[in-house]
Amino acid sequence: MPQNLRIPGPTPLPARVREAGSWQMVNHRGPEFKALFGRVSSKLQAGFQTTNDVLITGSSGTGGLEAAVVNHLSPGDPVLAISVGVFGDRLASIATTYGADVTRPAFEWGRAATPDQVRDAISGMQAAGHSPRAVLMTFNETSTGITNPIEDLAAVVHAEAPEALLIVDGVSGIGALPFQTDGWGVDVAVTGAQKAWMIPPGLAMVAVSPRAWTAAETATMPRFYFDLKRHRDAAVKGETPWTPAVGIFFQLDVAFELIEAEGYPAIHARHAACGAAARAGLAAMGFALFADAAHASNTVTSAHLPDGIEWSALSKALRARDTVLAGGQGKLTGRILRIGHLGAVNADDIVRALEALESAAHELGIPVVSGGPAAAAAAATGVAVIGA
Amino acid sequence: MPQNLRIPGPTPLPARVREAGSWQMVNHRGPEFKALFGRVSSKLQAGFQTTNDVLITGSSGTGGLEAAVVNHLSPGDPVLAISVGVFGDRLASIATTYGADVTRPAFEWGRAATPDQVRDAISGMQAAGHSPRAVLMTFNETSTGITNPIEDLAAVVHAEAPEALLIVDGVSGIGALPFQTDGWGVDVAVTGAQKAWMIPPGLAMVAVSPRAWTAAETATMPRFYFDLKRHRDAAVKGETPWTPAVGIFFQLDVAFELIEAEGYPAIHARHAACGAAARAGLAAMGFALFADAAHASNTVTSAHLPDGIEWSALSKALRARDTVLAGGQGKLTGRILRIGHLGAVNADDIVRALEALESAAHELGIPVVSGGPAAAAAAATGVAVIGA
Repeated sequence: MPQNLRIPGPTPLPARVREAGSWQMVNHRGPEFKALFGRVSSKLQAGFQTTNDVLITGSSGTGGLEAAVVNHLSPGDPVLAISVGVFGDRLASIATTYGADVTRPAFEWGRAATPDQVRDAISGMQAAGHSPRAVLMTFNETSTGITNPIEDLAAVVHAEAPEALLIVDGVSGIGALPFQTDGWGVDVAVTGAQKAWMIPPGLAMVAVSPRAWTAAETATMPRFYFDLKRHRDAAVKGETPWTPAVGIFFQLDVAFELIEAEGYPAIHARHAACGAAARAGLAAMGFALFADAAHASNTVTSAHLPDGIEWSALSKALRARDTVLAGGQGKLTGRILRIGHLGAVNADDIVRALEALESAAHELGIPVVSGGPAAAAAAATGVAVIGA
Repeated sequence: MPQNLRIPGPTPLPARVREAGSWQMVNHRGPEFKALFGRVSSKLQAGFQTTNDVLITGSSGTGGLEAAVVNHLSPGDPVLAISVGVFGDRLASIATTYGADVTRPAFEWGRAATPDQVRDAISGMQAAGHSPRAVLMTFNETSTGITNPIEDLAAVVHAEAPEALLIVDGVSGIGALPFQTDGWGVDVAVTGAQKAWMIPPGLAMVAVSPRAWTAAETATMPRFYFDLKRHRDAAVKGETPWTPAVGIFFQLDVAFELIEAEGYPAIHARHAACGAAARAGLAAMGFALFADAAHASNTVTSAHLPDGIEWSALSKALRARDTVLAGGQGKLTGRILRIGHLGAVNADDIVRALEALESAAHELGIPVVSGGPAAAAAAATGVAVIGA
């Protein structure tokens, strides 16, 4: 049985995507690459639900986040960072590093940001005389397993600070969960290869609205490798400004064939089913879910580790069962476990992971409810239980 | 016959490297990746001839150049940029973008920089009261086909401006041409995946000396994605700070097995033979070589395009012969052609490329000497002429 890689990225590659990783190189300035580049750029627009430019940087998602910040802001700009976890903090830190004046209200990890909280934060900044030039937020907070209600939060930003750019880290959500870049008025949205797109890490994708381009004209944070204008100028010629990760582009091209064949409504439903299976199975086993149920993510599920259980021991026992889950990050290190379910995942994979977790828990003497979890997961989604 | 991809990167992948591109993902924070990361990091030190840290960024070579600059300098720092082509200009532009006070003496493209020129440039800056904080130079200038004599230039820098950091773009040279990071006192050296390393683009490697680390402690240019200290802190744990391009790491691991089996002396000799073949063949055909013969690169050979010949037409005729060469860049666009010979290349590949070039030239009515070029190339290196 192949390893059941159930972390929130890198995600498992479908067979055809794997095969594309073995293709021979081509000239990145030649006709083969230009044709491929045009195809994937156009399909990314569909994935982001946008008519904006979607540019591709040669980096992890974090590089895409840096691009989202440094192209549109200047040192000293007041920025509101809505952070509910490690990745929200990272986005805020990028802005701080490049000199923005970042206001970072405290949010409880494991809960979503609320429209009221965002409204209060904006009015607090305005009362202090510096309305935000940009609002940063995370669509799907991978570290806690929360999906923020971007549509609702965006509406508050547009109403209360209409001049503010809305910059959204969509790395672990876009493509897997419903997201409307244009419909919700997201100025800059970012995603990454190894998440919903079912390809290896190494590319980030950044959608840029017309008013974000206008902001870029006067934004003075320094940028070179992540200069999106250079990316746009090159994209017009079917190129990237710097040598692209050609192999990963091959894989993205093939992945889009799979994505188009399935269709986004089916993809979103599949992720919802996997999320439901993970939550039902963990709860049936007796784990306390970490994330607020009202905003639990359909790409990654988090649960409290029982008291006295070392993540390293549980991880090792899971690996002995060909199963790889994720532990906690940042201040949640050693406190939670996470099951990733985005990209090329089916509810069967979740059932298998839950069976492995049940078995590993027994080995370690973790008191869990037996016999029910996989069945509960299956019941949540209607899939057959493997081996049952 | 597969396409003969003879550009100076991306370079063709050996079969085993291609196959590694099809491997399934693993947890980038798990034991498989940690073991791999340790292996390739150690082998990179051998490739750079250094005991310094060699860190790996998830980017093209240009991203590695940005890392080389922004980690070690502050806005306002006087910097001497020794540029003999497009890539030297790029490195200088990065420093300028981040606020360095860059002195960029004029050099003739197609010639190497000389020790006297570097000495004069340094003393000029010192006479003006601002000795360089860093000297930037290019090892192998891909755009012109020149290899700078870094050992000699470095000696001048160390003698005349001993406090200056020496930052070298080694992207298209290190690994293919003899280069001694420690022996020559190079503080920061950069290379890229798709050059000598025979793997797809998407990784850059940056070697950092102890005194460059000291400089990093007070350097104030902003950096986040390319923050090398974060890379060093993560490397201690066998990780990268951001999600690594796992697939390309798989390929690097395999490529190093091939590199170690061949050995650097044999690799350097093979590149020298390919360079000799390209120069002999082009000259025998009647092309005027562009680069100064005394410093002609053994990874890329440039020649003037005959008057009246459009590069696009010649490129198309070559492609019809399954051969891809490179044209000119920057101010050399439309003026030269380039044959890449780095990475997984043998003199046979050069002979094949010359035969295709001879045939394409005949089709376009370019007056070239017939019958001799491939033989001349073969004679230069002692390989058999294909089809002869």
